[in-house]
Amino acid sequence: SNMIKVAVVGGEGIGPEVTAQSRRILGWFATRRGVPMALREAQYGLIPYLATGKVLPEDTANAMDEADAILWGATGGPETKEVPAEARKAGGLLSLRQKYDLYANLRPIRANPALSESSPLKARILKDVDFVIIRELTSGIYFGEPRGIEKLPDGQRRGFNTEQYTTSQVRRVARSAFELARTRRGKVCSVDKANVLETSVLWREEVTALRAEEFRDVELSHMYVDNAAMQIVRDPAQFDVMVTGNIFGDILSDCAAMASGSLGMLPSASLGPVDRYGRRKALYEPVHGSAPDIAGRGIANPLGSIQSVIMMLRMTLNRPEDADLLEKAVDLALANGARTADIAEAGMRKLSTKEMGDAVLAAL
Amino acid sequence: SNMIKVAVVGGEGIGPEVTAQSRRILGWFATRRGVPMALREAQYGLIPYLATGKVLPEDTANAMDEADAILWGATGGPETKEVPAEARKAGGLLSLRQKYDLYANLRPIRANPALSESSPLKARILKDVDFVIIRELTSGIYFGEPRGIEKLPDGQRRGFNTEQYTTSQVRRVARSAFELARTRRGKVCSVDKANVLETSVLWREEVTALRAEEFRDVELSHMYVDNAAMQIVRDPAQFDVMVTGNIFGDILSDCAAMASGSLGMLPSASLGPVDRYGRRKALYEPVHGSAPDIAGRGIANPLGSIQSVIMMLRMTLNRPEDADLLEKAVDLALANGARTADIAEAGMRKLSTKEMGDAVLAAL
Ligand SMILES: CC(C)[C@H](C(=O)O)[C@@H](O)C(=O)O
Ligand SMILES: CC(C)[C@H](C(=O)O)[C@@H](O)C(=O)O
Repeated sequence: SNMIKVAVVGGEGIGPEVTAQSRRILGWFATRRGVPMALREAQYGLIPYLATGKVLPEDTANAMDEADAILWGATGGPETKEVPAEARKAGGLLSLRQKYDLYANLRPIRANPALSESSPLKARILKDVDFVIIRELTSGIYFGEPRGIEKLPDGQRRGFNTEQYTTSQVRRVARSAFELARTRRGKVCSVDKANVLETSVLWREEVTALRAEEFRDVELSHMYVDNAAMQIVRDPAQFDVMVTGNIFGDILSDCAAMASGSLGMLPSASLGPVDRYGRRKALYEPVHGSAPDIAGRGIANPLGSIQSVIMMLRMTLNRPEDADLLEKAVDLALANGARTADIAEAGMRKLSTKEMGDAVLAAL
Repeated sequence: SNMIKVAVVGGEGIGPEVTAQSRRILGWFATRRGVPMALREAQYGLIPYLATGKVLPEDTANAMDEADAILWGATGGPETKEVPAEARKAGGLLSLRQKYDLYANLRPIRANPALSESSPLKARILKDVDFVIIRELTSGIYFGEPRGIEKLPDGQRRGFNTEQYTTSQVRRVARSAFELARTRRGKVCSVDKANVLETSVLWREEVTALRAEEFRDVELSHMYVDNAAMQIVRDPAQFDVMVTGNIFGDILSDCAAMASGSLGMLPSASLGPVDRYGRRKALYEPVHGSAPDIAGRGIANPLGSIQSVIMMLRMTLNRPEDADLLEKAVDLALANGARTADIAEAGMRKLSTKEMGDAVLAAL
């Protein structure tokens, strides 16, 4: 069949709550706009663990293996303590990233016009902010070996990890950045710490070489990670596409989160390699985590997940007009004053997670 | 003699310009307030390199070896390209940190009252911000072995570095944090990435153990580095003392810089171990770098360097009243409207580096 397969995995904490809303949105696009997709919902986390001894039971693993796109919620809710660390690790997010080789993690940071205008403070902070951080997601210090904690002869302990990148690991993620920049304002800023780390020296050399070989039309600059953290706060509008390694991307994207008003707004896509049929596995998820403190209260902002659906429409479902449609609906809902607690200004009514879903559907 | 020895090393780029102003301030405290210090100026960088083949010539090395405190400017100006990398490395800042074992790097982030009030934007961003980041400065991924770039059998290259911490490396910097917190609001936030890195697991365990053994009166919390980057932007007033490793501290302190209005305002102190005479080697320097783009124009903000003198008065010269005096003079100069270009609001006169020095001296 030419149906595109989408696995919907809400997970833990606020994951199932926000995913329920983006699931409704996906349903709307399937029935009203005829987007050809086969949705399959699957469980992840404590509930399947109690039933099967695995956070990622076979049925969910199969659904994800077969899917073109995974709509992921969050993991590590208040349930965390009830699942032993080993069982967690086996089916954890990090091992999924490796299993599907999801090396390019795209995190768009966009100042929503309605939020930018709702206060003088935000107007200045958010104006013209529209960039994408591409974080390498399958290598670097997250996965480097050797790693561990050892006992030293003098009775002390030593913890150690290995940061590492190879030529091809750098080049494939840099390629994603250059290609994305071509569809945008044509600028890539590569972030590293080449004044201290050999890994970064290699990173910088390979990014520079790839540009010289294939992407001379794209403007390339380099920035040290400490300066990048400051520039993201000082003047985020200067960036178009930023590309960086795993740990730097983890830190910088959270640092950038406030430029979009709230972490709760931010979507992400994690893309694997293109296979011989031209398909590319993708996992879409909000940047926020499971937020145990507000889980179960129905007040989480579903826009991080809903905006991840915009990315899915554009990148996996290949429906750019539908992506634009949903983007406009989100903007309109916000312009009409729809606000969850995390983005509400004083005096505004705070919508529940479901009411925000209603507001976006109403705006479609 | 009971003179305290201070080596003054302006270095490169804007380093000599800003250091000239803090040198004048030090002179004022020596003559007008009788602070017992022996100042010795020494050269660093391109100029001695051309004369001696070394960026750090013997005379400067001796001055620094003998000094109780080093007032450091900056390194790596526009001159950088004229000095080969190997010559740079030998006397570079990283090797000085190791030579003097300057493991505790204190970076106070304080919202200056005058700057906080000068615009509604800043009022909200800066209000109540007053915390200190303690960055471990002699270990971590900066110095871990093995490191390098290797050729792989398939012709690719691989860059690699080692992140590492030992029990005693963690404990001594954590001790600095707990001791500092006792003189402040009694709160330490330790920042790591213990959900991914074994090095961070060890870090967290050792910090926790040290508190349990010796600092139960201090409140300790732990935060992941990505969340810390976001919290520093979202609500920096929540922090009192933050302690973290070398690379995380490098990134987070730049991320925090904007909370103080400008990177140009920020001072730092790097402290070594206490020796058997109770002395503790210290290097004081502005957080900013050599700023090649504005070097030689006399417009750099000297307050990062001057505020480093406040730290020197307090920590090495043991003159808390004089430290307070200088702190009040800086506040007064700013309250009177003294602004270098980096902190001037529209319509304010922009002072030169020397004029800002004058303004602080006039306020003393
Ligand atoms: C939960 C954690 C392992 C993860 C990461 O560090 O990658 C998270 O912070 C993220 O950004 O997706
Ligand atoms: C110049 C560089 C090596 C240095 C560092 O990374 O430590 C600088 O960024 C700093 O923070 O002092």
